[in-house]
Amino acid sequence: MASSQPEMEHPKKVFGWAARDSSGLLSPFNFSRRETGEKDLVFKVQYCGICHSDLHMLKNEWGNTTYPLVPGHEIAGVVTEVGSKVQKFKVGDRVGVGCMIGSCRSCESCDENLENYCPKMILTYGVKYFDGTITHGGYSDLMVADEHFVVRIPDNLPLDAAAPLLCAGITVYSPLRYYGLDKPGLNLGVVGLGGLGHMAVKFAKALGANVTVISTSPNKKKEAIENIGADSFVVSREQDQMQAVMGTMDGIIDTVSAVHPLVPLIGLLKPHGKLVMVGAPEKPLELPVFSLLMGRKMVGGSSIGGMKETQEMIDFAAKHGVKPDIEVIPIDYVNTAIERLAKADVKYRFVIDIGNTLKPSS
Amino acid sequence: MASSQPEMEHPKKVFGWAARDSSGLLSPFNFSRRETGEKDLVFKVQYCGICHSDLHMLKNEWGNTTYPLVPGHEIAGVVTEVGSKVQKFKVGDRVGVGCMIGSCRSCESCDENLENYCPKMILTYGVKYFDGTITHGGYSDLMVADEHFVVRIPDNLPLDAAAPLLCAGITVYSPLRYYGLDKPGLNLGVVGLGGLGHMAVKFAKALGANVTVISTSPNKKKEAIENIGADSFVVSREQDQMQAVMGTMDGIIDTVSAVHPLVPLIGLLKPHGKLVMVGAPEKPLELPVFSLLMGRKMVGGSSIGGMKETQEMIDFAAKHGVKPDIEVIPIDYVNTAIERLAKADVKYRFVIDIGNTLKPSS
Repeated sequence: MASSQPEMEHPKKVFGWAARDSSGLLSPFNFSRRETGEKDLVFKVQYCGICHSDLHMLKNEWGNTTYPLVPGHEIAGVVTEVGSKVQKFKVGDRVGVGCMIGSCRSCESCDENLENYCPKMILTYGVKYFDGTITHGGYSDLMVADEHFVVRIPDNLPLDAAAPLLCAGITVYSPLRYYGLDKPGLNLGVVGLGGLGHMAVKFAKALGANVTVISTSPNKKKEAIENIGADSFVVSREQDQMQAVMGTMDGIIDTVSAVHPLVPLIGLLKPHGKLVMVGAPEKPLELPVFSLLMGRKMVGGSSIGGMKETQEMIDFAAKHGVKPDIEVIPIDYVNTAIERLAKADVKYRFVIDIGNTLKPSS
Repeated sequence: MASSQPEMEHPKKVFGWAARDSSGLLSPFNFSRRETGEKDLVFKVQYCGICHSDLHMLKNEWGNTTYPLVPGHEIAGVVTEVGSKVQKFKVGDRVGVGCMIGSCRSCESCDENLENYCPKMILTYGVKYFDGTITHGGYSDLMVADEHFVVRIPDNLPLDAAAPLLCAGITVYSPLRYYGLDKPGLNLGVVGLGGLGHMAVKFAKALGANVTVISTSPNKKKEAIENIGADSFVVSREQDQMQAVMGTMDGIIDTVSAVHPLVPLIGLLKPHGKLVMVGAPEKPLELPVFSLLMGRKMVGGSSIGGMKETQEMIDFAAKHGVKPDIEVIPIDYVNTAIERLAKADVKYRFVIDIGNTLKPSS
């Protein structure tokens, strides 16, 4: 029977940082995880990325947060224990867990390796697991996870760089593949140059595209081209710049989660072009249907990726040297980092050095 | 040099009905068409369908109408003359012309047999042709057209039934193909049961789909199932009926051109489902991005089809017995028909019997 005390609920003692209320402030937290099941593996967390959704969840901005909340779904570490029926991993393996740690494994989506679209998909933190307890994320020293929801991190990919790939990376990689935007020579746009956007530029480049960053301000132009590798940069508020690239793009990955107009973006597309949304504005956007009809354009969505594709993405990233630009921080900087993230003051992903800085309270 | 008198402008004397102003009222009109060019054919119009866009154009509701306007872009007839370099047709052939009669023939879209998305595509009526004169449609006794923009109508397809296929038919057939909604066994929805909607049901059925009509009122249920061939019917205003089919559809063809909510329709889609708009509401619709992300759904548009696909559609219709439900009218009923169309009082397409009822004034 589950205990009401988090640290007694399960046999495995874990230490992490949790928010206790909608202030969102994180502080040290002793809790516990389940005993290693037959198909489970245990890994020591080395690094955990800070995703923008952590920020929303910490402050209960989506209205579904339960406290205490241990965030983190960009988790990389090293296996310390495997269950008796684990087949893919052994102790010492470098592994990662992303946004989900469970799904029904029997629906149409699961059958197609698209566990991310399973109606019973279980998020890595803040929701009920199969046993009824609340899942806790990677701002903690130890993870227990079913091997199906664990990916292998290739040796040539540093664990700190691998962490953000598990959410930000797969979020932009999957739609590039699914929507056929993975052919060399395509002209692609990326709207917004944040955690998702800078990964979209890098993956699109690695896939052979010609990439234009579309941003509301010119501030990031030098950075986008010289550091991130974009081919060109367009300021969306400059009518003449937008006009010059009208009808030239095969696809656009739109990472912006604020409300923004779609008409200019649809105008940038060639006939049959695809505008793919990976950010989720809280309010509906205005969809000009006529501009979709003329040119057979589409607006699609995409949300992370299945486990098979997540492994493919990590392998692709390792092979092609695709890495996020990160700022590695100690755990006791996490509240400051979250404040800075809210102001978009990071290039481009905070990654918490859990292995070296999270020290269990005794 | 072009004369300012329509009947003197070109050598071929033509008789039709035209609107002279934004009252939209049609009345007899003598005009002329160009001499038969090398690649042109001339055909005697037998039937012309009345499309809903005729109504908008007649009354200048889109603000771009020039008068006099001879509408009609669902035109079927019999060839009476061919130019010296015409290859595909001979005198006596049964032919049709749809929404377009010209395009640049050299852009990417034209190269891909998608003349309908050519930026220089020329509509069958109401726009400037290559020679600077205004094009006139099929509410007239004679058409002159480049053979590239003419389709052959198979012998077993009556000309009156063929006419509406050239706009209403291809408008719904093309997206069924392009968006992969043409696989037997799919669950498809059709929103709206008018000229486009009833054709969408028939083509989807012929392609092997299980088809549900989605309508705001229950009035058309019996009709949709017993006469048009839909498998089921859902009233979109009935919450329980909509709930019962949530997440069950692979695709939806939305033919409604009034402003309407997309959220419930997106909710009907399975993961990876596609909502395809073929009607063009004048104002933007509200797009709930989050509902696209969760399930990787998309909203796409489509506009008629290329000439190659239009021929395929006609051949498919002939082979599978797909015909519109039509009400054949004499030309002098046309103003009444337009009034009735504005009230959606037609099952499901008016077709003007040009051959038997349009008598040239002498």
